[in-house]
Amino acid sequence: MTRPQRTVILAAQNAANRLADRHTPFVMNDWYVAAFGDEIKAQLLARTLLGRRLVFYRTSDKRVVALEDRCPHRSMPLSAGTLVQDTVVCAYHGFRFNSEGDCIEVPSQATCPKNVGIKAYRTLERGPVVWIWMGEAEEADLSKLPEQDWMEDRQWEHSKGFLSLQASYIRLHENLLDLTHLSFLHAKSFGTPDYAKAAFESEIGEGRFALLRNVVPTTLPPVWAVPTGLTGPGQAARIVRSEFKSLGMHEVSVRFYDCHLPENERPEFQIRTAHMPTPETATTTHYFIVHGRDFAQSDAATTRFMHDQLFVAFNEDVDGLALQEQALANTPAEDLYEFSVASDAPAVAMRRYVLARQQKEAEANSAVALRP
Amino acid sequence: MTRPQRTVILAAQNAANRLADRHTPFVMNDWYVAAFGDEIKAQLLARTLLGRRLVFYRTSDKRVVALEDRCPHRSMPLSAGTLVQDTVVCAYHGFRFNSEGDCIEVPSQATCPKNVGIKAYRTLERGPVVWIWMGEAEEADLSKLPEQDWMEDRQWEHSKGFLSLQASYIRLHENLLDLTHLSFLHAKSFGTPDYAKAAFESEIGEGRFALLRNVVPTTLPPVWAVPTGLTGPGQAARIVRSEFKSLGMHEVSVRFYDCHLPENERPEFQIRTAHMPTPETATTTHYFIVHGRDFAQSDAATTRFMHDQLFVAFNEDVDGLALQEQALANTPAEDLYEFSVASDAPAVAMRRYVLARQQKEAEANSAVALRP
Amino acid sequence: MTRPQRTVILAAQNAANRLADRHTPFVMNDWYVAAFGDEIKAQLLARTLLGRRLVFYRTSDKRVVALEDRCPHRSMPLSAGTLVQDTVVCAYHGFRFNSEGDCIEVPSQATCPKNVGIKAYRTLERGPVVWIWMGEAEEADLSKLPEQDWMEDRQWEHSKGFLSLQASYIRLHENLLDLTHLSFLHAKSFGTPDYAKAAFESEIGEGRFALLRNVVPTTLPPVWAVPTGLTGPGQAARIVRSEFKSLGMHEVSVRFYDCHLPENERPEFQIRTAHMPTPETATTTHYFIVHGRDFAQSDAATTRFMHDQLFVAFNEDVDGLALQEQALANTPAEDLYEFSVASDAPAVAMRRYVLARQQKEAEANSAVALRP
Repeated sequence: MTRPQRTVILAAQNAANRLADRHTPFVMNDWYVAAFGDEIKAQLLARTLLGRRLVFYRTSDKRVVALEDRCPHRSMPLSAGTLVQDTVVCAYHGFRFNSEGDCIEVPSQATCPKNVGIKAYRTLERGPVVWIWMGEAEEADLSKLPEQDWMEDRQWEHSKGFLSLQASYIRLHENLLDLTHLSFLHAKSFGTPDYAKAAFESEIGEGRFALLRNVVPTTLPPVWAVPTGLTGPGQAARIVRSEFKSLGMHEVSVRFYDCHLPENERPEFQIRTAHMPTPETATTTHYFIVHGRDFAQSDAATTRFMHDQLFVAFNEDVDGLALQEQALANTPAEDLYEFSVASDAPAVAMRRYVLARQQKEAEANSAVALRP
Repeated sequence: MTRPQRTVILAAQNAANRLADRHTPFVMNDWYVAAFGDEIKAQLLARTLLGRRLVFYRTSDKRVVALEDRCPHRSMPLSAGTLVQDTVVCAYHGFRFNSEGDCIEVPSQATCPKNVGIKAYRTLERGPVVWIWMGEAEEADLSKLPEQDWMEDRQWEHSKGFLSLQASYIRLHENLLDLTHLSFLHAKSFGTPDYAKAAFESEIGEGRFALLRNVVPTTLPPVWAVPTGLTGPGQAARIVRSEFKSLGMHEVSVRFYDCHLPENERPEFQIRTAHMPTPETATTTHYFIVHGRDFAQSDAATTRFMHDQLFVAFNEDVDGLALQEQALANTPAEDLYEFSVASDAPAVAMRRYVLARQQKEAEANSAVALRP
Repeated sequence: MTRPQRTVILAAQNAANRLADRHTPFVMNDWYVAAFGDEIKAQLLARTLLGRRLVFYRTSDKRVVALEDRCPHRSMPLSAGTLVQDTVVCAYHGFRFNSEGDCIEVPSQATCPKNVGIKAYRTLERGPVVWIWMGEAEEADLSKLPEQDWMEDRQWEHSKGFLSLQASYIRLHENLLDLTHLSFLHAKSFGTPDYAKAAFESEIGEGRFALLRNVVPTTLPPVWAVPTGLTGPGQAARIVRSEFKSLGMHEVSVRFYDCHLPENERPEFQIRTAHMPTPETATTTHYFIVHGRDFAQSDAATTRFMHDQLFVAFNEDVDGLALQEQALANTPAEDLYEFSVASDAPAVAMRRYVLARQQKEAEANSAVALRP
């Protein structure tokens, strides 16, 4: 048996304490995807984000409202109530709240008590997604919203989907910053045997972490070979950039071309995927996905083909990460350790950054609480 | 957003600490309904009351026996055993217990060890219900049994039912002391729009809390209009008294009459409902209900109609309270607070009283434990 | 009511603190049955033993391999991976481990990091069962392996089976050392009314605990009467020895003969049952059973008849012990106590021994941890 010596395990456990994991409290002061815009209608929708129960609806002037989903009187979920003229009426005693979270009616009395209300969260609808700022609405920082122009660009053809992940969002971000698993976890979908061993570069900066991998020449899996026509063995170049853009978005960009053609004669095919993980609880995640391409834009059959093939692969991640979360939950603490290898560098840096973000936020909150 | 300032929330949380809630230990020294009498036969029935597992049976002379449902030898539930001549024989090793909880036989040896036995609870069968004293049987205090004459009176026609509530019994008592929710939670059953805003009086005393509401004139919902014939719009008076009579019983009395008739010519119709919540665990409750009326006593169709309509409403309470309990369980502690309004006064007083009862009981138990 | 006085209950609770129960950490340095040999093939099998997740497989040279079921890189269960040439390839990133637990390949890099690996457990296949040493493999102590010659002896006809027990293995060992429950828990299977009251002897030694009971004359239940032909009332002798041989095995040996025949003329019939409980978690147990007889060896119908009848009885134990575990889990701590009677002496001594074993192991581990 070659489990490492206890001192090595302890060192690994200590190192992990400097990285965000499922035990790290959520970073509230950031933008996360709350929903696809078309999910939010003129009716009440309950959803838990970052451990908070929220209720969503769309007003008559099409704004997206996000409120705490708990009446502060007797804790009835407001999502069990009714939406009346852009206000929410509690199912229990008819307390009414406007879209700012103010209590504006208590039916059993003539006037509404002061100082009563619920938290309203700042939302922003951009292209197909609704972003939510989970910290205090007044402090919502637009500069932290990740760039997503291509998602709103008609030059790109899009499809989207949602997966429910039974694992921490940290594990998903890590998975997305690590392309060496494609040859294994995705061996039957979009991974190829040469992927894991291909050279890679990484970019590690303040809050931006990227992994670049050129697999040239390669044989494309059907999901890319069929729509690009690059079906020949060893015909294609596959140039991948995978980037953590924010706590709420990871973007994967891929360029394909025929590497047998001269450089100035070869058409390029681009695809891009926005992976948008939003924590639901410490160990469950809402996984929103938008996929786009800059070719064959009006070909609905290609959209359907690529979407279906991609979601086979994304489901492999979802299944695999859930198995890991179960192993983490059921391993005695003293036996629990993980070690990293060279290709984990961007993911490890990202996890260190997330923990630092959370710690900074906790310190700021403590300072506020101590304010005289 | 208008969630109150942290200081206001902290004040609300502090205020709630003086009220009984799902975290408050049970008050053992009181009477609770254990079962309807017709549930208890010459066979073993397992039921958990106030977090204690009990086994019930009826002896050959028709007494109701309630014992701890755990053999003190190796913890086998006695309810898995057999009832033999008014004694319980454990399924595992055949230890035998009489109806007082004494161990009277250990088959593997000639004599029974001393000092071995299980707790027997004092029970009292009254009308359709079996009451149980959950504290020490010797201290059972008959003066604490709530009055229920009408339940045993042949002038009243009765029906009864049981609901399993996935919420604290405290929430149910509070719900019953608060009639302002009828217009909302029961909008489709026995609530009417004028109910929430009708004037009310409250009586708040030592262990007795009542809410009185006269809704005059009003239009009755079908559950009352059909059997009384007071079907006209604005024809009826609805005079309601809702009273917490003990930890084990809440009674709602309603009088109806035609308010268009002169006072001395109008027949009155009375209905009464005993709501008898018995905690099962901290967040689940056995909900026993007896309903009666003093008119059309022999009309079985009316009994069935009223019973069915009423249970639609009571199920609305059960569903709504369960949703609240879920919200309480899944809200981070720092975000959890509730504020009360004027119409909550009787319920808040009742919750203060229940907490005081529990604290007094805990102090008495400590004193006993310290006795030299 | 005759629940004992608080002082008596406290004394019982204190006495129980000296006995192993579901709260006692597992004894790692011993042999437990991991599986029947025919369960382990050239494919990955996941199983939790003593709270540890393991993966099993059989190599091309037929050895049984048992490894930690968690990749030490990112906690993927190795059982979700693939078996390639006697090595396990992780499903996530293709890390490869040999049958000693060494990491021998990390596909994303040219060389494998040092000091990386997983625990490999020592296994021993003997007759129908695979034993596993749950402590450090180098310290595996063959002298602790219980004798099981008859299980490998062709003079004995065997059958085997597996039950999943929802209770602590301690409760099962106790059940097996206590034959007084046969008249009750097994009244409808292999218990007879005279069993509980028959005289018994016990042998209590260092790590060996046995109970001997001669039920003579007796009427055999069908499971024994039919195959031996000793079907007459009061015709048979039933001589039982039930022995805790190790933490991983309890053996029950029974001899039957016709007690109406002279001593030197009577044929004897022997049956033997190895009960092999392996803890899965604190309150669940893998229950492996091998049963044998030294007569009518080639009679398949008898094998089937006896096996089926026996498993009816063993299922009664499994059901009964699960009910006890539920009662233990749901009884408030202050109400939880158990008292023992004379026939419990071997079981109580066994539980005292198991606790001492665990405490000794914990002390040795502390000493190792403190070693400079």
